Amino acid sequence: MNKKFDSKPKLQSLVEQFNDVRAQTLTLTQKLSDADATVQSMEDASPAKWHLAHTTWFFETLILCEYLDGYTVFDKRYPFLFNSYYETLGKRHPRPQRGMLTRPCLDEILNYRSYVDDAMETLLSRSSKVDFLPLVELGLNHEQQHQELLLTDILHLFAQNPIKPEFRPAIPLPVQNLALPALNWIEFEGGLEKFGHTGEGFAFDAEGPIHQQYVAPFKIASRCVTNAEWIEFIEAGGYETATLWLSDGWATAQTEGWDAPLYWEKKDGAWWSMTLRGFQPIDLDAPVTHISYFEADAYAHFKGSRLPSEYEWEHASRSQPLEGNMLETNRLRPAPATGEGISQLFGDVWEWTQSPFSPYPGFKPAHGAIGEYNGKFMSGQQILRGGSCVTPPNHIRATYRNFFHPQKRWQFSGLRLAEDL
Amino acid sequence: MNKKFDSKPKLQSLVEQFNDVRAQTLTLTQKLSDADATVQSMEDASPAKWHLAHTTWFFETLILCEYLDGYTVFDKRYPFLFNSYYETLGKRHPRPQRGMLTRPCLDEILNYRSYVDDAMETLLSRSSKVDFLPLVELGLNHEQQHQELLLTDILHLFAQNPIKPEFRPAIPLPVQNLALPALNWIEFEGGLEKFGHTGEGFAFDAEGPIHQQYVAPFKIASRCVTNAEWIEFIEAGGYETATLWLSDGWATAQTEGWDAPLYWEKKDGAWWSMTLRGFQPIDLDAPVTHISYFEADAYAHFKGSRLPSEYEWEHASRSQPLEGNMLETNRLRPAPATGEGISQLFGDVWEWTQSPFSPYPGFKPAHGAIGEYNGKFMSGQQILRGGSCVTPPNHIRATYRNFFHPQKRWQFSGLRLAEDL
Amino acid sequence: MNKKFDSKPKLQSLVEQFNDVRAQTLTLTQKLSDADATVQSMEDASPAKWHLAHTTWFFETLILCEYLDGYTVFDKRYPFLFNSYYETLGKRHPRPQRGMLTRPCLDEILNYRSYVDDAMETLLSRSSKVDFLPLVELGLNHEQQHQELLLTDILHLFAQNPIKPEFRPAIPLPVQNLALPALNWIEFEGGLEKFGHTGEGFAFDAEGPIHQQYVAPFKIASRCVTNAEWIEFIEAGGYETATLWLSDGWATAQTEGWDAPLYWEKKDGAWWSMTLRGFQPIDLDAPVTHISYFEADAYAHFKGSRLPSEYEWEHASRSQPLEGNMLETNRLRPAPATGEGISQLFGDVWEWTQSPFSPYPGFKPAHGAIGEYNGKFMSGQQILRGGSCVTPPNHIRATYRNFFHPQKRWQFSGLRLAEDL
Amino acid sequence: MNKKFDSKPKLQSLVEQFNDVRAQTLTLTQKLSDADATVQSMEDASPAKWHLAHTTWFFETLILCEYLDGYTVFDKRYPFLFNSYYETLGKRHPRPQRGMLTRPCLDEILNYRSYVDDAMETLLSRSSKVDFLPLVELGLNHEQQHQELLLTDILHLFAQNPIKPEFRPAIPLPVQNLALPALNWIEFEGGLEKFGHTGEGFAFDAEGPIHQQYVAPFKIASRCVTNAEWIEFIEAGGYETATLWLSDGWATAQTEGWDAPLYWEKKDGAWWSMTLRGFQPIDLDAPVTHISYFEADAYAHFKGSRLPSEYEWEHASRSQPLEGNMLETNRLRPAPATGEGISQLFGDVWEWTQSPFSPYPGFKPAHGAIGEYNGKFMSGQQILRGGSCVTPPNHIRATYRNFFHPQKRWQFSGLRLAEDL
Repeated sequence: MNKKFDSKPKLQSLVEQFNDVRAQTLTLTQKLSDADATVQSMEDASPAKWHLAHTTWFFETLILCEYLDGYTVFDKRYPFLFNSYYETLGKRHPRPQRGMLTRPCLDEILNYRSYVDDAMETLLSRSSKVDFLPLVELGLNHEQQHQELLLTDILHLFAQNPIKPEFRPAIPLPVQNLALPALNWIEFEGGLEKFGHTGEGFAFDAEGPIHQQYVAPFKIASRCVTNAEWIEFIEAGGYETATLWLSDGWATAQTEGWDAPLYWEKKDGAWWSMTLRGFQPIDLDAPVTHISYFEADAYAHFKGSRLPSEYEWEHASRSQPLEGNMLETNRLRPAPATGEGISQLFGDVWEWTQSPFSPYPGFKPAHGAIGEYNGKFMSGQQILRGGSCVTPPNHIRATYRNFFHPQKRWQFSGLRLAEDL
Repeated sequence: MNKKFDSKPKLQSLVEQFNDVRAQTLTLTQKLSDADATVQSMEDASPAKWHLAHTTWFFETLILCEYLDGYTVFDKRYPFLFNSYYETLGKRHPRPQRGMLTRPCLDEILNYRSYVDDAMETLLSRSSKVDFLPLVELGLNHEQQHQELLLTDILHLFAQNPIKPEFRPAIPLPVQNLALPALNWIEFEGGLEKFGHTGEGFAFDAEGPIHQQYVAPFKIASRCVTNAEWIEFIEAGGYETATLWLSDGWATAQTEGWDAPLYWEKKDGAWWSMTLRGFQPIDLDAPVTHISYFEADAYAHFKGSRLPSEYEWEHASRSQPLEGNMLETNRLRPAPATGEGISQLFGDVWEWTQSPFSPYPGFKPAHGAIGEYNGKFMSGQQILRGGSCVTPPNHIRATYRNFFHPQKRWQFSGLRLAEDL
Repeated sequence: MNKKFDSKPKLQSLVEQFNDVRAQTLTLTQKLSDADATVQSMEDASPAKWHLAHTTWFFETLILCEYLDGYTVFDKRYPFLFNSYYETLGKRHPRPQRGMLTRPCLDEILNYRSYVDDAMETLLSRSSKVDFLPLVELGLNHEQQHQELLLTDILHLFAQNPIKPEFRPAIPLPVQNLALPALNWIEFEGGLEKFGHTGEGFAFDAEGPIHQQYVAPFKIASRCVTNAEWIEFIEAGGYETATLWLSDGWATAQTEGWDAPLYWEKKDGAWWSMTLRGFQPIDLDAPVTHISYFEADAYAHFKGSRLPSEYEWEHASRSQPLEGNMLETNRLRPAPATGEGISQLFGDVWEWTQSPFSPYPGFKPAHGAIGEYNGKFMSGQQILRGGSCVTPPNHIRATYRNFFHPQKRWQFSGLRLAEDL
Repeated sequence: MNKKFDSKPKLQSLVEQFNDVRAQTLTLTQKLSDADATVQSMEDASPAKWHLAHTTWFFETLILCEYLDGYTVFDKRYPFLFNSYYETLGKRHPRPQRGMLTRPCLDEILNYRSYVDDAMETLLSRSSKVDFLPLVELGLNHEQQHQELLLTDILHLFAQNPIKPEFRPAIPLPVQNLALPALNWIEFEGGLEKFGHTGEGFAFDAEGPIHQQYVAPFKIASRCVTNAEWIEFIEAGGYETATLWLSDGWATAQTEGWDAPLYWEKKDGAWWSMTLRGFQPIDLDAPVTHISYFEADAYAHFKGSRLPSEYEWEHASRSQPLEGNMLETNRLRPAPATGEGISQLFGDVWEWTQSPFSPYPGFKPAHGAIGEYNGKFMSGQQILRGGSCVTPPNHIRATYRNFFHPQKRWQFSGLRLAEDL
């Protein structure tokens, strides 16, 4: 969770934000059946119902129980069921068992949300005390993270089903009259610079503190690696060439039998993929996605190139506008790059970096439950930057540090190349 | 499946039976939500929705597609989804993935049932050809097996849920004014006798052929082992005494951490258990259930006794009336024995025997898909006899051979002791 | 262990037998290095050094400590290290860790053997008390069982080594001028007969008590299934045809990737196999060996036949001479059948039967440690009969019941077909 | 392997070094039996015989086969058996199977060493061509790494044995008259500095290239954390307090049941530990060792402190003398700190840093087999610095980057605390 830096959320804008974010979550789950919302398709994923309840539990436990006098919890069994991983906040239902909860049903969880939303409205309408406002802001950013997870988890669930349901109706992709712009390399001089969140607006704790870091001169690709380029890698035997791979990566690829990105299937000689819009032909010009860090690194090796460090990525991105193909486009798939300059930094796919998730110099986790938010995950995971096609647009920024284990593939994860100058 | 022996089902009674059995399945699933009917709680169990569809697929594939001219399958993707294990009938969805099928939803499966029922009504109303009638009879017996499995699977699912849902409302157990009758030993002389199904009415293929077997003089307990007696076993250290156990049983008990029957929990010093009527105190006089063969055998060893062979059981039961606490009582839990004679042979709990599931002398599986029904399971499993509190009463008989692997506990399985004379 | 029936071993012959059996074990291990004797190649197998020590521990613990006044154990750490599975006799080193014991070294174990042999000589020379003699006889039969295991375990170890060491020098097989006799079927009328050990000479407890069993008329093959016949099964797709297999067998075959018997490898289009005489071409006329019960059953199914029951096997064998290709021939591989009558019943390969290992009617295990010898293995295992090419010839008899889990393949296990008449 | 930087080894000193290093390996294995040298106690460890052969294979394959005209490989099966992980150099025996190689026996491997040493002597005596000298230097450094691994692997093997063999005789620890010096904090100003190997003498490729890095002001502990301090952590419930641990660390600790460092056992209320000098009481003032990164990090958290980064460690160490308790002391155990200044940087225990093993800016692996030496391990591992009590003293330097997965404990790994200024 956040150390809050200097974030001082304004009450009024926070009330609006609260309504927007909470409504957005409901919009995303609107077409899901009770069963869709209940099943857990793997240990990494959580049921949609669980996401709906857990984000609500967060407001109830950390804010309402502490700050709203006379608040009564909706159901005293829920804290056990919907705590995720906060050791500080007591025992909890084991993660791999989340999909066993056919009860409470989806409607009861929606009632839970209404109940908590009403109580939050009451609390937020009492303007006298505002020291909980940073927690509200944190809760909303937390919920936005779960919006993205909810979508990637539903995609994973639907991908297990031989009848391949559509989360949203398949729409014909816009005819791509525009040729994909050529890949350019953008050069940066680097130097000793400050990194991390500057203190205005919200940020998670792991984005700080601001600190100096030396970055050597480098260049970075103008766009992400595309599906067409990835098919070249496949056809050149990339998945069968051990020397391209990290040792742990090669072992994983063999054990798991990887020969293409997650969700890819060959059908009548052409590659198709499961998407949130059903089973679709691969869009050759769009960024490759659903690849692990191990695959991204092997590809970079194959190209005689490398992945950027997170410092390089942040250095290259900090002056760029915060715009791209994100959740609000409702495309729900990565889109081809356009324009000649550097593009696709925000949205489309999270970009694997060569930086492991480590504490920034001077980082100390907060005390209590919110201290468990990020710090305890700082081993064995790899930083991704820039957001994806299912990231809420007001959730991302140049300093945002996402992280996953290097073998994970169910997020919208892709890559962009970099090289030394 | 059945070799049919001499079973010649009558058309009229079969039509009635068809309506009854199919309606009964629906009754059992009436209170289940879409999510309840979808989740698979372990590899051994199947979702209720799957049971509903698979039993329907059986009629569609083996009867309608073969015998009803012009029949069109309801959905051509279903045979892949709802075939259980018939290698002869093509590829199928992997068993451990059955719980991933949030679509088709429960309502669609109910439509599937109606569609197939209508087609079956059409077929059965055409009286000219009747050579498929034995298959109808088989299909109904097959569906009754799945009625029992559906209930044991739902119990397993609900038992995983910390809020412990009730499948049917908890009702106060009838006050047990009657003292539990004392345990008597009933003696039998044995001899060289015929065993197996005699050929009247329906039976599964593994119940035949009739064959001679010599049974030495033995005695058998008048009732099943009770929960109170099982608690004595626990308190005497039965679960910690390796020398009471079969070698594979002890290894399993250690790996799984068994210290009581499945679903038992100690609460404020007393034993409780999850049941189809919710979380309930143990009924001390009722037969113990949800125990493995390994536990049953260890208990018998503890008592200096043994389990009966399936021949002894059949010998003792063949003259007894086919009555007991079965599905029609709607109790859904085993009940204490009453009366002085031999009791509880049918219903209450399936009784583990010391007989492995082997082919009877002269047994040959049928050709084609129905030949896969029983024969291919004749290794590593143990025979249980007599039906349980959730067995449909017209489904059981003295020659019925049920079988499960010796470590399985989620069925209503219990035991009755026997000894040599 | 044995219930002893009426076995009354004579002192003098037992002394000779003791010397012979103990010397034979040493002969078998003569060419093994310290490392050969130490490594454990899988959990089922034990190091040769462990076999040497465990058989010695048996005499020390059950006889010397009890019957030889003033006996001092050789090393007080050994009972923990070399107890196999006797819960009654205290804690022991975990089976999968047996290969970690690089110390005590082989020479120390040989000293241990000498020390115990000397003490046994002392004990046996004091003729006054003889109530331990049945235990000596049991210990020697126990050691003979371990002689066979020692060889199968060494073969398994050497088969893991890419340089494929020879246990004994490869010798050219005798030129097989004699054509393999045609397969005949020998018919038996069956009837109600007595089975089990008759009470003269030594037998293990599970071979009794004598009891009546009805056997229906049957016929049995005159010889075992050969390697040439097995290759037909392979080439006919036997390993890819699910409908031939038991359900558990098919699952095992898929998981383990079986496509031929254990140790078989194809080299330049011909089948070779690892043997105790090194890597050798398959002897086409010899019985197939190193197959599981699951494979044996699938083969029988493929031939429209079946495996014999253990009663049928015993019925067919009881009048046959106790002779065959066993350990004393030092061939160490199965040999082709000769002659026209029933052959290969004893020696060559253990023959899988369709009988699970169950207690005979009236069987009760002995009290104490020796009661753990057989009874606790009576679940999930399958009976094999007749001994193999590495069974000591004075160890086998028509009533001998060997047993292994149905998926095991490292013993010299093969099959002979049977059919109903 | 090394990029060689500017290393230009002199022929004469290299010949001496070759003789020394090769002799040292033999000295270490002198007291091992054939069995000791053969068994593999876990997948991470290798048999001593394998270390002896693999280091020899390195010279044979990379140098003799390439540079010595007319060289004949000792045994053409060995390259398959003794290649470790070089995909470039062909297929190899699977790592987990290394312990199955009872043949070739230890003596044959010693012959292999002599044969290769003779050929190396021949090659090195021909002074005309010297372009292979960097490979000789690499081979010797490679062998020194395996000297340390050989000792940690033997310790692991002996620790599995209930009789707890001594690798070297137990000697009474020197009476510790000197009180352990108090823990001091040494402060450093940091700044933008150059890091990595400077180019004189040998270094592995991952130690370069030299590059700038900014280090913020910090302080570092004058000595390593001691066993006495670790016992405080245990007694304060450190192993039961989830909030102290990294998330992956806590999961590992629970799964593995950690409650003390590897090899620790409580005996009559006091802690003992398996060592290369047998089972010994814990030396309270000596550095704790055989801990994972996860434990080190939890301890730092417990103390409100943190681990140093590898840059901080290198910054603090570069001016310190290269001396300490290493392999040449033959103590084979960590020793208590002495003196008031910063101590124990070199030798005693490898010190976990908070830096994951990542490529230095500008790092590119070499082409061919030697490019596989380090680069492919740059994911999921953590940097350790400074060498241990079993590191050859001329093998270590301030820039040396050792790395292991964060859950590994069988190395002599410990920790030193650091804090921000």
